[in-house]
Amino acid sequence: MMNEIKLNIEKHLKTLSGFTSTINNGVTRFPFTKEAKEATEYLKSEMEKIGLKTRVDESGAVIGRLEGKEKRSIIIGSHYDSVKNGGEFDGIAGVVCGMEVARLLKEKDFIPKYSLEVIGTNDEEGARFKSGFFSSKAMLGQLSVSDLKNLKDADNVSIYDAMKEYGLDPESINNAARNLDDIKGFIEIHVEQGPVLEKHQKDIGIVDTIVGMQRYMVNIDGRADHAGTTPMDMRIDAVEVASKIISNIGDFARLYKDAVATVGSIKVLPNEINTIAENVAFSIDIRSTDQESIDSIYKKIVNLIEQTTSKYDSKFSITNTLSVKPINMNEKLKERIEDSCKKRKFSYEHINSGAGHDSLPMAESVDTAMIFVPSKEGRSHCKEEFTNYEHLAKATLVALDVITEI
Amino acid sequence: MMNEIKLNIEKHLKTLSGFTSTINNGVTRFPFTKEAKEATEYLKSEMEKIGLKTRVDESGAVIGRLEGKEKRSIIIGSHYDSVKNGGEFDGIAGVVCGMEVARLLKEKDFIPKYSLEVIGTNDEEGARFKSGFFSSKAMLGQLSVSDLKNLKDADNVSIYDAMKEYGLDPESINNAARNLDDIKGFIEIHVEQGPVLEKHQKDIGIVDTIVGMQRYMVNIDGRADHAGTTPMDMRIDAVEVASKIISNIGDFARLYKDAVATVGSIKVLPNEINTIAENVAFSIDIRSTDQESIDSIYKKIVNLIEQTTSKYDSKFSITNTLSVKPINMNEKLKERIEDSCKKRKFSYEHINSGAGHDSLPMAESVDTAMIFVPSKEGRSHCKEEFTNYEHLAKATLVALDVITEI
Repeated sequence: MMNEIKLNIEKHLKTLSGFTSTINNGVTRFPFTKEAKEATEYLKSEMEKIGLKTRVDESGAVIGRLEGKEKRSIIIGSHYDSVKNGGEFDGIAGVVCGMEVARLLKEKDFIPKYSLEVIGTNDEEGARFKSGFFSSKAMLGQLSVSDLKNLKDADNVSIYDAMKEYGLDPESINNAARNLDDIKGFIEIHVEQGPVLEKHQKDIGIVDTIVGMQRYMVNIDGRADHAGTTPMDMRIDAVEVASKIISNIGDFARLYKDAVATVGSIKVLPNEINTIAENVAFSIDIRSTDQESIDSIYKKIVNLIEQTTSKYDSKFSITNTLSVKPINMNEKLKERIEDSCKKRKFSYEHINSGAGHDSLPMAESVDTAMIFVPSKEGRSHCKEEFTNYEHLAKATLVALDVITEI
Repeated sequence: MMNEIKLNIEKHLKTLSGFTSTINNGVTRFPFTKEAKEATEYLKSEMEKIGLKTRVDESGAVIGRLEGKEKRSIIIGSHYDSVKNGGEFDGIAGVVCGMEVARLLKEKDFIPKYSLEVIGTNDEEGARFKSGFFSSKAMLGQLSVSDLKNLKDADNVSIYDAMKEYGLDPESINNAARNLDDIKGFIEIHVEQGPVLEKHQKDIGIVDTIVGMQRYMVNIDGRADHAGTTPMDMRIDAVEVASKIISNIGDFARLYKDAVATVGSIKVLPNEINTIAENVAFSIDIRSTDQESIDSIYKKIVNLIEQTTSKYDSKFSITNTLSVKPINMNEKLKERIEDSCKKRKFSYEHINSGAGHDSLPMAESVDTAMIFVPSKEGRSHCKEEFTNYEHLAKATLVALDVITEI
């Protein structure tokens, strides 16, 4: 059985990797594009072959339903869209595993307690419209028609217009909202996108918490002067001030268990070898499963910014660009996943998700669980992204156990 | 007399500021351009009005000669080219002051001991061909025809071709070389381009030393990973490593008197908020009047780079892009400048030049002195660059004293 599941997953993923706008350079499958339509149609057709009743909802999510004993359903899946030049696994692997769960149930003629809905969600990544979680927010009733008009891509095309062009009715987006009483739970299988499971040689990661996140843009003002003629005690060097702040940010995060803090972007003005920098703008991304840790790290950074700019007579500004609170996965679903791993002798560990997923908004309203599988060398959002098909098959069997034994 | 000198200087500088390719946005007077020709012709014509015998040498320098008792000459002047969007004073002010010295000698029918050559040199800044000191190097016989062919501007035009287009014969560049026995000295009046004289409220800066300079490009390699999913102890963050180096470079310079060290340029790859940086490239510019200080600062930086990259398992490379040794100005000329300041009750101080000038190559072969005048707020290489005309007039009188009393 294991081998058949592996082969099915590999076949589906290889086929789906062809639905990309960047052939031979990773998978680029942006929402409301030709590639998105090809992927949706493939998934729909494969779901129908399995015997699921399919539909595409108003957000562009493809859903295949298998009736259980109750009308209430457990939704299993992930997203089918990708980042630019992304991998063949991120998102879509969770959809394919969900389809395999349904196929195995059908194969055994097993009627689960709760109906099963396999879902491929749309625009989780937000790569095109700088937003994301599109289908999950639509299901939760969190999208308005004006949101669709306001969010625009790099070519200034709104989601609203992109949907119309694609053949969806943006005015009906509210119809994608689900009655939450009809949803028993949400299960998302996803590649880890980090190095932990591979390093620890685990088959399965049981996600405890999706981290909270805060993002900031910091501006440090100096004064542009000649690098040769301005004595050290007469200069306000924005690079010197910024570097004395940035150099401590990682160490602040290291004071807290499971916290990370990253400066990924730095822009220097005028960025010339012989001119003292008049401005440095840099990003800060702080994440932790513990909101207090995030707040403490931020507080330490702000204190350091205040002290350092004051010492060097420099000025600063800070803009908050994102704030998301950490959210815990459902304890009962986690227990069932752990029971399955033990029964099947799959190695596992509890892990946190450092990245956002559809499970993040879903978990606020619905019992939610995430099953992680190892990412080769922790790589993701790149064409080198890889996960062993065996790991995906194991995650499929774990999800199957949760569905059948609930 | 003072007032007449001031007015002449102001008139010349305002006229010359019109010979720019960037009207209303600072002075841009690149070598071998229409603006360079206009400036040269203006200077030549004004020199002839004063009664000087003029010529344009093979490098494009404009020279006006006043015969003294001896054939040997003292050359006084500076450069007429500018950086992009530069000021109305840098370089050209020294040419104009030189012309005023000659005019005052002529006016008094004073025949100096040594002949006087007022010079406007070409391409000191190196803004177009990334080289510089063009006329001074040509006078010193340090330029070859192949140099002219190898040095190219942003449009891939070589100096060789630019000279031909301009009406100069690049094959004759060696004819610009002077017999150094014919040169008694070189005096350059120049704006300070730094804040020191203004801050100390001095009229005149007597340059002791032009600083030595070393420039490096440093590459720090990290590993591009997801900023959310990669634990702090599993990441190699090029920004973190680089910032722990950069943050100390200014402090290393502060350990040495009169030394400066600047990181003006930083480039981060991929420079995305949620990706750990895989590479940071940054510049280092170290200057001091003391070569040992420069070497010590560089050694400290290299030690820190080695320690820090080793600690974080990162890799690095360092490329030296410029090495110039400090050079002292001529003691006897400095004494004469100081005597003049005392006699005329001009406030003065001894100062070092943190920037390179034609005096830098000249001083290696010729007795050389530099007279600095205050720069408003230390600004230079920008349209805000300003020096009081009175300060330029005072520097002119000091130079006149040196010429008449030698």
